[in-house]
Amino acid sequence: MELFYAYEVSGRFCRLDAEESSHCVRVLRHRAGDEIDMIDGLGTLYHCRLTLADPKGAEAEILDKQEGFASHPYHLTLGCCPTKNNDRFEWFVEKATELGVDRIVPLIGEHSERKVYKTERAARIALAATKQSLKARIPEIAEPQSVRSFIAASPQNSLRLIAYCFDDPSVPRRSILDVLKEKQGYDITVLIGPEGDFSPEEARLALAQGYIPVHLGPSRLRTETAAVTAVEAVYLWSLTL
Amino acid sequence: MELFYAYEVSGRFCRLDAEESSHCVRVLRHRAGDEIDMIDGLGTLYHCRLTLADPKGAEAEILDKQEGFASHPYHLTLGCCPTKNNDRFEWFVEKATELGVDRIVPLIGEHSERKVYKTERAARIALAATKQSLKARIPEIAEPQSVRSFIAASPQNSLRLIAYCFDDPSVPRRSILDVLKEKQGYDITVLIGPEGDFSPEEARLALAQGYIPVHLGPSRLRTETAAVTAVEAVYLWSLTL
Repeated sequence: MELFYAYEVSGRFCRLDAEESSHCVRVLRHRAGDEIDMIDGLGTLYHCRLTLADPKGAEAEILDKQEGFASHPYHLTLGCCPTKNNDRFEWFVEKATELGVDRIVPLIGEHSERKVYKTERAARIALAATKQSLKARIPEIAEPQSVRSFIAASPQNSLRLIAYCFDDPSVPRRSILDVLKEKQGYDITVLIGPEGDFSPEEARLALAQGYIPVHLGPSRLRTETAAVTAVEAVYLWSLTL
Repeated sequence: MELFYAYEVSGRFCRLDAEESSHCVRVLRHRAGDEIDMIDGLGTLYHCRLTLADPKGAEAEILDKQEGFASHPYHLTLGCCPTKNNDRFEWFVEKATELGVDRIVPLIGEHSERKVYKTERAARIALAATKQSLKARIPEIAEPQSVRSFIAASPQNSLRLIAYCFDDPSVPRRSILDVLKEKQGYDITVLIGPEGDFSPEEARLALAQGYIPVHLGPSRLRTETAAVTAVEAVYLWSLTL
């Protein structure tokens, strides 16, 4: 099964952009009349018949559609500080997309070495991984924001978890899997700090806002490994529901 | 904390190879008398005093040692068919090492596109990731072998799991986390197939040998993502013990 991304769905027709059209018509040599599968990136799969095999702008007629195709039983927002090495963060974006994530928010923390982040490449990787892993919904790659504004803006009704090595013994931490099992939240937000970890003020702010402190185990994980581990925990937990 | 790898530990002394010696003496400018931490790669951490600051072959006297440093409460062997793209398999080796794995066996399956695999690079990555994640035991990167010989040789007393999309409805599969929770094994073996999956004969052989069929959830995961997900499942499960 090969999925194409429809940048526009209007009425009975799906439209492919130049890149997808070229891949569909030039590379895969699809012709008018061929049946192909497309996604709108919002969660719907369309089974279509190619009507206009134009390598610059192909069109296909919708024969059948399936909403919520390959969806997962949770809504996960992952706020994570991009790594100094861009490849590592982009690798996380690919893996999180394969497993199942809804929103990735690149965060700039007080200890972040990376103070700016451009989302274009990550968005392309998310699209490619969505198609490759046969999902219909492309995770949103949000514009970068500060850790503080992310914490302040995260919805109170979301199960909000922060992975941070609180030295303060008065802040007990449980394993992320234990907390997920106990709280059984649908809307989940996980906060992963930069290579230099959160600042104590950022951590305090998160706790004050209702974030639950969790740990990801005794292993010393790189930032991108910690972020993937958080997604894996939510994904593996959802299999036990 | 920075860890150095001692290729030889004899009596009261640890010895560094040329690469580690140069890193210790030339790059980090350690001098005789400095206290440094070393691992033997077998699970022991040595706190030492540098006695010979030779950039070609440094030596350090053992002041204190800690066996089973940063060990995990399971023994995990992961048999996995290397991906066509070497970087993806090496990324898995790095992540599995960070999380905690004991033995990685590159497997050649009947559907493997990659029929040969050289272990040198993966072994170097495992060493670097062991030091970076502050562990004392370097996972073994075994020599490649066929899926069939791996299955035939895997110990009967190990909890052996195979992740494979059995079309046969008479073969029920449960999520890997559910099986880990029920069986509570210490010695665990997980088998992950190639991009083309196992051959039906390989899968049948595994079941005949007592492998338990498991699934890694509904997401369609790349080979290296499936392998990391298996390690994550064992790691996260071990946190709930």
